[in-house]
Amino acid sequence: MTSRPAIAAAARRLIPVIRHTPILRIGGAELGLAGPPSPHLTLKLELLQHTGSFKPRGAFNHLLAARAAGGSGADPERAGVIAASGGNHGAAVAFAARALGMAAEIFVPATTPAAKRARIESYGARLVPVGADYAAAFAASQARQAVTGALSVHAYDDPEVIAGQGTVGREFEQDAPELTHVLVAAGGGGLLAGIAAWYAGSAQVIGVEPETCPTLHAARAAGWPVPVAVSGLAADSLGARQAGAHVFPLVEAHVAALVLVPDEAIDAARRLLWDRARVLAEPGGATALAALLCGAFVPPEGARIGVVVCGGNTGAVPG
Amino acid sequence: MTSRPAIAAAARRLIPVIRHTPILRIGGAELGLAGPPSPHLTLKLELLQHTGSFKPRGAFNHLLAARAAGGSGADPERAGVIAASGGNHGAAVAFAARALGMAAEIFVPATTPAAKRARIESYGARLVPVGADYAAAFAASQARQAVTGALSVHAYDDPEVIAGQGTVGREFEQDAPELTHVLVAAGGGGLLAGIAAWYAGSAQVIGVEPETCPTLHAARAAGWPVPVAVSGLAADSLGARQAGAHVFPLVEAHVAALVLVPDEAIDAARRLLWDRARVLAEPGGATALAALLCGAFVPPEGARIGVVVCGGNTGAVPG
Repeated sequence: MTSRPAIAAAARRLIPVIRHTPILRIGGAELGLAGPPSPHLTLKLELLQHTGSFKPRGAFNHLLAARAAGGSGADPERAGVIAASGGNHGAAVAFAARALGMAAEIFVPATTPAAKRARIESYGARLVPVGADYAAAFAASQARQAVTGALSVHAYDDPEVIAGQGTVGREFEQDAPELTHVLVAAGGGGLLAGIAAWYAGSAQVIGVEPETCPTLHAARAAGWPVPVAVSGLAADSLGARQAGAHVFPLVEAHVAALVLVPDEAIDAARRLLWDRARVLAEPGGATALAALLCGAFVPPEGARIGVVVCGGNTGAVPG
Repeated sequence: MTSRPAIAAAARRLIPVIRHTPILRIGGAELGLAGPPSPHLTLKLELLQHTGSFKPRGAFNHLLAARAAGGSGADPERAGVIAASGGNHGAAVAFAARALGMAAEIFVPATTPAAKRARIESYGARLVPVGADYAAAFAASQARQAVTGALSVHAYDDPEVIAGQGTVGREFEQDAPELTHVLVAAGGGGLLAGIAAWYAGSAQVIGVEPETCPTLHAARAAGWPVPVAVSGLAADSLGARQAGAHVFPLVEAHVAALVLVPDEAIDAARRLLWDRARVLAEPGGATALAALLCGAFVPPEGARIGVVVCGGNTGAVPG
């Protein structure tokens, strides 16, 4: 299972290619959160990362680890890289591949917004729109990979990807060591699993899912990953249909609680981030904060709460 | 003249009411800036400040200093506060007045965008639209002040306002002590004068004006503040018609260079900030960066450049 040493190794590998994103401390009262005392919040502005989301951390870590390993089988320097994505992971793989001089093919489903498609193509990748959701695009990408022999980078269920995403937690702890709770949105759960593996109980890590994308809730209820239907505001970034075999044990081991939020709370969180802090998140990027707004997570008195704002690939300011 | 001790005093006063805004380090090559070597940039994300611009620093410092001084004349706790503004200063005074339990009247010209008007009203201030530009709104506010006796907070030409804005420089030096050059947009010049007074030559502070709002250029050419015509993309935040009597001597003493940028460079800077870093600035907030993009300021080799992104009160993502 992914652990602190693997995340620390990823952090060393990522220094030349990743932004150390800033934090912003903000009073809970500024967001209309009740007290007394109103909670103290620290936002991790990971939407300022290259490509507008945390995803390049995992993508670069996978590609750099594969390059370092050299190794058997297909030669990715020649066969290129392949990935399926709701959009953000695809942009990250395309960005990382270009930086490392590799060709990339990115498979996206119908739910992927035009802005994310354009971003993927702007990095020189070949965009392949196919299927109704992420799972369908992923199946198509696997069929193609069997032909090309390209290096496949999974969007979340991969130890190197999880370790890369875990570096968000490492930076957050370094910059805000006082945190007692850290709220993280979950789709496939790679970011959540990585951050939870970093903290490993030293702060309580809370996973937040949209009610319309309850992938980890379903897995926890069943005892193992099971497929669920996904829809709603944040489906293009959090709409993984099934948790992964690498992600789920980490969630079970290290995530203190999983909570669900309605789309209305996600929309309200997005509006508040823009109105009160000029942070323009996409719905998935505002989902962690939504848990505080709607009361899905009620912090204990004295809590010092970190909130990861994990993506900003949106085309519009809240009206 | 405003100096480091006055700015340090302002910083102490502002701790409970102002956000210490974060920085973001970014490679010049990421913004398409040529090398070799491509310059190293550090953005000061002051658009994440309360109300979406740096302006609350000066507004709070003026009101808190007046309150501490107690003093003669009108009682601002009863007569309230009055200000004229292109929008951002008005929002800041309204925000600060509400926080301190005082009533506020804000005079704005026709150029003030709807989003900024709505923001001023959202803080409970009385909005008074009057005149074609900032100078006309200011004249109307002064006539009203003579009747009400309210405490007037000038948008830039006031020692306490300049000292408050100077705390941006103090934070920037603290967080990025390696900077050799700091680029700052100028309208009336309060932010530029304050930051330049803080550095006082320890880094070169460069003032950047739109070609269509050359207020400080005109003052420097004439040897004293003179009125100029103002228009263009950033006029709602940088469209002061005349530099101030407190601002101008500080600019002459401490600003290493003044440069002009065309509206096209401001628009390009705004697009780049959004595309490459998910920072959504208003035109005035992107003006300092524009000087690097269009070559109005060419950094010497080895320069470590700070860029203040000073406002984000815009209603739209670049398309």
